[in-house]
Amino acid sequence: MKPRGEPRRWKAVIAYDGTGYAGWQTQPDKPTVQGTLEAALHTLTREDQRIFCSGRTDTGVHAVGQVVHFDTALGIEPWQWIRGLNRHLPPDIRVMKVARAKPDFDARFSATGKEYRYFIWNDEVLPPHLRLYRAHVARPLNLAAMRAAAGRLEGRHDFAAFTANPGYDRGGTVRRLFALKVSKRGKDITLRAAGEGFLYRMVRSLAGHLIRVGLGELPPEKTQDILASGERTARVPTAAPQGLFLWRVMYR
Amino acid sequence: MKPRGEPRRWKAVIAYDGTGYAGWQTQPDKPTVQGTLEAALHTLTREDQRIFCSGRTDTGVHAVGQVVHFDTALGIEPWQWIRGLNRHLPPDIRVMKVARAKPDFDARFSATGKEYRYFIWNDEVLPPHLRLYRAHVARPLNLAAMRAAAGRLEGRHDFAAFTANPGYDRGGTVRRLFALKVSKRGKDITLRAAGEGFLYRMVRSLAGHLIRVGLGELPPEKTQDILASGERTARVPTAAPQGLFLWRVMYR
Repeated sequence: MKPRGEPRRWKAVIAYDGTGYAGWQTQPDKPTVQGTLEAALHTLTREDQRIFCSGRTDTGVHAVGQVVHFDTALGIEPWQWIRGLNRHLPPDIRVMKVARAKPDFDARFSATGKEYRYFIWNDEVLPPHLRLYRAHVARPLNLAAMRAAAGRLEGRHDFAAFTANPGYDRGGTVRRLFALKVSKRGKDITLRAAGEGFLYRMVRSLAGHLIRVGLGELPPEKTQDILASGERTARVPTAAPQGLFLWRVMYR
Repeated sequence: MKPRGEPRRWKAVIAYDGTGYAGWQTQPDKPTVQGTLEAALHTLTREDQRIFCSGRTDTGVHAVGQVVHFDTALGIEPWQWIRGLNRHLPPDIRVMKVARAKPDFDARFSATGKEYRYFIWNDEVLPPHLRLYRAHVARPLNLAAMRAAAGRLEGRHDFAAFTANPGYDRGGTVRRLFALKVSKRGKDITLRAAGEGFLYRMVRSLAGHLIRVGLGELPPEKTQDILASGERTARVPTAAPQGLFLWRVMYR
């Protein structure tokens, strides 16, 4: 590959610890994941290219499999992209994979689905080494109730009651949730949400609801009523950001 | 139990993330684990009591099972100690367990052994969420060579070549290493070191040596020569602090 030539499109998988960032999107005077990545890309290529992601993440939310695309005339090998970008990035953002993409590949619009995972530590004391990566629920959660509620949320529904801002979401509030699974290993409870697309703060709203059900504050039968209401109310809390990880993005 | 009475001795298991602390021991103008714990104990009891640990940890070193003892006249229940102290502690230090101890129990001198674990991420890129809790070795490590070297270090030896400061260690430099095991799960390599006692920076010195052997910079046969030399030289590097966890302390 030539070091310089026509601009070409690249796809990359990015992991980050969201603790120190005001979310993905560039903002004035605040550290963001996008701003930090674009600065590293600029240092490496001396070009001013924008980096486009599969979907923004909020302040404090993590990613292990965020996908991005960018264009550049610098024609170096994938392993050189990984090393070169990581050398200019802080250790809380890492480029995990890089590959050439077709010119029409778009990290957001080519995506066919996404998987998020939400992690809850369900015990009296939250261990220090997990404090940045778990929501903490001290009282015992009822897994059977959470699973019953989760099952009612799977499938194609109007999720207006589970978005923090219905006006914000493009193309209405109907989404297909492929799977919403609850699993437990020791004191770690994992919610796995896979779907074709997610509304604004939808996963944290689903998690907030499932935690309420698990605590016995709402019976799982209420889930259908809330879904049917099509209205976001205080009955659905938004769970803490540090439990949430963008896990992977699916493409055809 | 009466809220106030004769001072009594308590034993507690403490976990901490060492990232933000200049080690265990109280120092002027620096945040330390001991200083932070004693401040929380003071806030709770209004007494000025010292907290004694099983053994100091260095800057950046973690613990999941540090053991401490302290005396206090405040007679509250173990669960109240856990909640009360954790309420006054930052989330990177947690009290995991509290129990009444005999008056002659001493976190350090009653200990019959200790286990440390040293974690190495052995892959090109260190994931952001592990960066504070793993040493990073990008080049592939030869596990068989590391195990051969580790086997030669088990047992009772003069570990003078594996301490950062032989003059610092009380009672000479001979110690019994019950076990030094190397295991691998995915890209995570774990060194498990259990012994009756450890010299200053001994586990990080053992880890630094095993990493050199794993990289092929030294054959495992050299381990015996280094041990026999009784002299700490640049051949034994001290591995990075963030890979090290004080795992548990054993008592009779």
